[in-house]
This record gives sequence, C-alpha cells and structure tokens, in this order.
Amino acid sequence: MNHFFNVKTLEEVFSLVEQFSVVGTQTIDIGGACSRVLAEDLIAKTDMPGFRRATMDGYAVHAVSTYGASESSPAWLELAGTISMGRVPGFVLKPGQAAHISTGGMLPKGADSVVMVEHTDLVDGESVEVYKSVAPLQHVIEAFEDFAMDQTVLTRGTFIRPQEAGLAAGLGFSELMAYKVPKVGIISTGDEIIPITQEPVPGQIRDINSYTLAGLIEEAHGLPVLYGIIDDDPSALKKACEKAVDECDMVLISGGSSVGTRDYTVDVLASLPDTQILVQGMSVSPGKPTILAKSSNKPVWGLPGQVVSAMVVVKIIVIPFLQKLQGYKKSVRQIRVPAKLTRNLASAPGRRDFVRVILENDQGSLLARPVLGKSGLIRTMIHADGLLEIGEHVEGLEKEALVDIILL
Amino acid sequence: MNHFFNVKTLEEVFSLVEQFSVVGTQTIDIGGACSRVLAEDLIAKTDMPGFRRATMDGYAVHAVSTYGASESSPAWLELAGTISMGRVPGFVLKPGQAAHISTGGMLPKGADSVVMVEHTDLVDGESVEVYKSVAPLQHVIEAFEDFAMDQTVLTRGTFIRPQEAGLAAGLGFSELMAYKVPKVGIISTGDEIIPITQEPVPGQIRDINSYTLAGLIEEAHGLPVLYGIIDDDPSALKKACEKAVDECDMVLISGGSSVGTRDYTVDVLASLPDTQILVQGMSVSPGKPTILAKSSNKPVWGLPGQVVSAMVVVKIIVIPFLQKLQGYKKSVRQIRVPAKLTRNLASAPGRRDFVRVILENDQGSLLARPVLGKSGLIRTMIHADGLLEIGEHVEGLEKEALVDIILL
Repeated sequence: MNHFFNVKTLEEVFSLVEQFSVVGTQTIDIGGACSRVLAEDLIAKTDMPGFRRATMDGYAVHAVSTYGASESSPAWLELAGTISMGRVPGFVLKPGQAAHISTGGMLPKGADSVVMVEHTDLVDGESVEVYKSVAPLQHVIEAFEDFAMDQTVLTRGTFIRPQEAGLAAGLGFSELMAYKVPKVGIISTGDEIIPITQEPVPGQIRDINSYTLAGLIEEAHGLPVLYGIIDDDPSALKKACEKAVDECDMVLISGGSSVGTRDYTVDVLASLPDTQILVQGMSVSPGKPTILAKSSNKPVWGLPGQVVSAMVVVKIIVIPFLQKLQGYKKSVRQIRVPAKLTRNLASAPGRRDFVRVILENDQGSLLARPVLGKSGLIRTMIHADGLLEIGEHVEGLEKEALVDIILL
Repeated sequence: MNHFFNVKTLEEVFSLVEQFSVVGTQTIDIGGACSRVLAEDLIAKTDMPGFRRATMDGYAVHAVSTYGASESSPAWLELAGTISMGRVPGFVLKPGQAAHISTGGMLPKGADSVVMVEHTDLVDGESVEVYKSVAPLQHVIEAFEDFAMDQTVLTRGTFIRPQEAGLAAGLGFSELMAYKVPKVGIISTGDEIIPITQEPVPGQIRDINSYTLAGLIEEAHGLPVLYGIIDDDPSALKKACEKAVDECDMVLISGGSSVGTRDYTVDVLASLPDTQILVQGMSVSPGKPTILAKSSNKPVWGLPGQVVSAMVVVKIIVIPFLQKLQGYKKSVRQIRVPAKLTRNLASAPGRRDFVRVILENDQGSLLARPVLGKSGLIRTMIHADGLLEIGEHVEGLEKEALVDIILL
C-alpha cells in the first residue's frame, strides 16, 4: 500500500499535462471536419462575402433618395431594373432610381442601401413609392464585413463546430490541416473479469469498463482501441502495455483493484522501457488509487477498477490530458453548469470529492440532487446527469449552495 | 409574400411534432451503442453483481466478531484463508474468523462485512488484529444491489451514454435493439450559390449551409445526406425534393432567400405527392421565413438562406423534431445553462428572439455577453458560445437578468 501514501492533488496532476505533446497532423476533407481540431491558422484568401449584398428583399437605392420619405409623403423612385441572383448587375444605379433586389443579391454600383419591400409599393411597371427612409449601408452587408482578405479567421487549436466548418467551406477550404484523432488503448485487468459474451459464475463479473471507457473516449472525440481483458499476471500485463503504448497515443488500464494488482501495475509500468511513474494516488474521491506514468512520452493511466471511480477519473483528469494531445487551444466543451444544491452534503477535508447529481429544472434554474450510493454501483451513474465538485478545503456544502456541475 | 402573413409561434410549430413518427429499429453491436437510442426495454437476466462483493481491500468477517473492537482493545480473529479474485471461496467463514479479500472479491459464506485493511494488523501468519468494528453489510455490495434479476434496467427511448453502454455490457447484452440513425437530406438552393471548390465571381457565394447543416445534424447524431446545390428552378427543386424525401427520413432545404424562390419553395412542396404545408412562417427572429411540410409523413423544412438564421432554426426546432424521429424519451442533451446578462437587450414583443452570446466565467457563475451583428454574418456564430432566448411577451431584458443559454 506504500505506493499510495504520497498522493497528489488534482492540480498537481493536471500540471503534468505540460510534459506531453500534441499528436501529429493530417490533411482532412472539409466534410469530415466537425469535431476535429484545426492544426493551422486559416487566413481568408478573399473578402467575404466579396461584394456588397442585400440582407432584405426590397429595392437597392441611394439612401439620400429616400431621406424625408414617409407614409404621407413617399419618395418616388424610377425602377431601373431587377437584379438577378448570382450575377453582377449590368447597370449603374443613379440617384432617384431603385432596383428590385432579393436577400443575398449584389447591389448595383451607386446603390448604398436597401429599402425593405414592406415599405414600398410598385406603382406601375416603372415607379416605386418608398414610405420610409433608409440610412447608408442599411440592410446591406459590405464586401469585407464578414471577413476581410488576409485576415486570420480561425487559429490553430480551434475545435471545429458546424459554424467553423461552414466558414472554412465558405472561404473555399475544401481540405484542412487537422490534428490526428488520438488513439487511446484500453486494457481491462483482473482475474474476476470475463468477456461480456460469457456467463459469469459467482465471483466473476463481466467487463464493464472497456465499454464505459471506450464510450467516454469517443464522446471526447478520441479513438478507443480495445486490448481486452488481461489476467492478474505481471508478464501478460507488461506485454499488453508495451503493445498498447507502441500502437496508441494514450493508454488506460482499468482494474487491478486487488491489493497485489495495484502494486504490480506500478511495478509493471516502471519496468517498461523509457518510463517514469509520475503519479501514485490522487487526493480525490472517488478515484484515489489513480496511477499516471509517462511511457515513451505517452500518458499511461492506471484507473480504479470500480466503474464509477474509473469514469470520474476519466471525466476530471484523463479528458483534459486527451485535449492536450488533441491540440485544443481551450476546452470548448467543458462548460460547467451552475445549479442549486437540494440538500446538505458532508465532505472530508483534504480531498476533492465528486458527487453524482441529478439535474432538475426549477422555474428557469437548475437543482442538483445528489445521487447516493456506492461507487461500485453503476446505477448511480445511470441516474446521474452530472458531477458536483467539492474542494479540498471545504468541509461540506449547505442546502441551496450554488454549485457548478460537470455534465455526464 | 402572402405565404408569410400567418406565422405560427414556436410552441405551435413544436406541437406538430406529434404528427411524425419514430424511424425503424435495427440490431446493433454494443461496441457501437453510444449516442444511439434504445428501442427496447432492457431487463436484467441475472442479479448484478450476482454475488456479495467487497468494496474495499481488507478482511471478510462476521460483523458481530468485531463489535467493541478499538485501538486499545482490538478483536483477535483467526485467519481462515485468502480469497482469490474471480473464484468462489472454498470455505465457510465462521464467527471469530477473517478471510483476506480484495476489492471486488466474493465474500465467503457466513461473512457479512469487510474490515478495511487500514484498520487491521496481520499478527503472525494466523491471526488478524481488528481495531475498528464494522456493521453488517459494511464495505460490501449485495448480490442484487446494483440491479436485481427481472428488473427493467433501461427503458425504450433512452439515449445511450457510456454508462448505459457499460451497464448493458455488464448484463451480457452484446447486441441491442436501437432506433436507426435518421437520414437527413440537405439541399442548398439559390442561383448565387456555387460549390466550395469553385472561385466565386462578384454576386456569387460558396455553399456554406450544406456544411453547417450537415455538422449540426451529425452533432445531433443524425446522418446527413448532401444533395448539393439546386438552382432557382422549380422543376429541378421538385425533382431533388422527391429524391430526398424518398431516400431520407427528414429533409432540409436551405436558401430560396429570394422573394420568388421563397414562394416557389412552398409551391414546389405543395406539388409533391402526399404532402401538406404545415407552417409558413414562424414568429421567431432570426428564422421567420421557416417552412414546414409533411411529405409522405416525413418533415421537410424550408430554412432561411442566411447561415445564422438557418442554424438558429435547426437548433431551436429542427433538432427537437429529429429527436422525435430518433425515438428519444427525453431531450437528454438539451440542458440550458443559466447565466447572467452583461447588458440591456431590447426585443420586439410578439416574436421570440434568439440572441447569440459569448459565455464568460465570472467567479463560479457565467456571464452571457451578446454578440452583435447581422444574421448574414457567420462570424457572429464563430464568436458565439450559445443562444439566449427572449420570449414573445418580453419587451427586453435588463443587465444582470438571469437567462438560460442553449449551447452552440
């Protein structure tokens, strides 16, 4: 048990992320860019939209021609033509003229604004009555108003959402340089663990962790690689670890919940080539017996065997490391949700507690209702919507305390 | 323009979701179950974990044998053996005895609790000193404590997160019945729209919407199917719509932002076989010119051409319809985030406004800072983290108002 006397705080473990580097890059098609991380700065090669564009259906005008126009005293403008979508207007608009234009259409030379069709009447085929004045640039987008040529529109390390993909597409980037999707090897250990297709006899349980951990890695946009179940046998574990470290960018070993196993997980990791043990125990609950090693410059985690503990450790510390590997500039998707606690919660000082909670809507705000139950029970995670964090220096939280929730 | 005089509220449009039905079901492998929706009730075929299990490393005991034990007056127990992981203990534990056990191990018959190893000393090879008493069932999980045989553990319509996948795996379900992933056809329209690989001349813009809409559908776990760009030509649009309705479960038509197009999108949809126009205009901003038709019992949406408006409409109303098709029992992922507004916001009564906001951390709570800018500018969506909703009957919001944010 000596390995776990010198536990590190969550912050101390997190600071170790600096020791690891971002995965390599690759060219990807824009169609598959969502949820990837940009590995280059994108610079606009042209202005966007590239021409002065109407944002309303109506008439392109010189604003000055509408000044003073009102319901009782409309401005009369001469209809100069209709603008076809996708074409350069074949005429120059003079003061006193109006050209019929649709949203997205290109304003003719001379025109500086658009009068909404609702504020006009087409009198005959030749004149337009305008009932409301417009200011210069009203209801138009300038050629460079979205993005100007040579402007950096997206920077390296940006998580690509639908709008970033759309912007890149709009600027003509049919391919992007992105960070590779990190491969995360997953190893389940324990003599008591059997494949899910087998029928357990008393004493055995099916391999839950491979599936929950793979799901969490997918959710965080990594690529899980399953290495199956390894018995409590140091040489088998060493072999599996070497293979996983060789083939992946990060490795998760779950289980080894027995006293002996937990010790030999450290010993096995220490025996791998080019490997340092960085963490042996973390002052969080659940999740204390967490191990972190650096093997061939890749993070290798020893996670608790209890499913809830393993999931909590992945959510609170493994994913931030994964994001470092992925090249994230910031943790875009890790917004915490404020909520109000429904009851008093006790907590032991000196450790960081993570409590599963159910979120309930309550007149526009959220209530966080703690889910009680042992961390060996997966049903506590089935009921939970999120995790509530209680700091090391807090002895507990009172009912109605405002708390931040990490979504599950 | 007549089509858009009789606009519906967001609630009225949402109530139409009842007219559409869930997609079909299929058998899927448990390894690909995350982010799918369960199409059956899962019933436990056995107890889980199935045997009385230790949740700590230590000694299995009869609790009664430890009563009164303390540092100064320890209980002396006879070591009856060591329990191997994954095996049924080959002995019955008698009162006065202790058996060495690891977390996850099976308690021997007779034992009802576990003393943590930290509260014991192994004196010689034969006796264990216990310094703290335990209560019956302390540090154990009962055979049926996670889930009992014949219990319904997950119900039809559940969105499968990593923990639900793990639970199903743990119960031996290597396959699940899930709803199919709905196919969502995406059609861009407009004479001004060109493929992203082409160089636009003034008046033209590249097809942004196909990429943003496909991204939003993927994010919501649907399968986007791109039908490319259709010119402003009713017969071409009709042909594309028929094909998309035939091949997909839902169709999005974006663009048709020109006055004529918007009208003929309705006309084209009305001319499709077995089709009813349900919505022609929605009292939201941006997004007013939204069309919804029911064609062969599938929702077909006419979305605004402006990228921001199209995205907002997808987030606020298309995704809830998609979730109906997907078989969701509840919208698990649509939690709104409470935040505090940084400035006064005006709003026209009689319509629902959606304002893009940046979220900033501020001492444990979140600030929502409005992003100003026209809905034709994609950069407003690039800067934004979420959407703030202002109700129809609200004339505006004051600085510091508590608001709910839909994450982008």
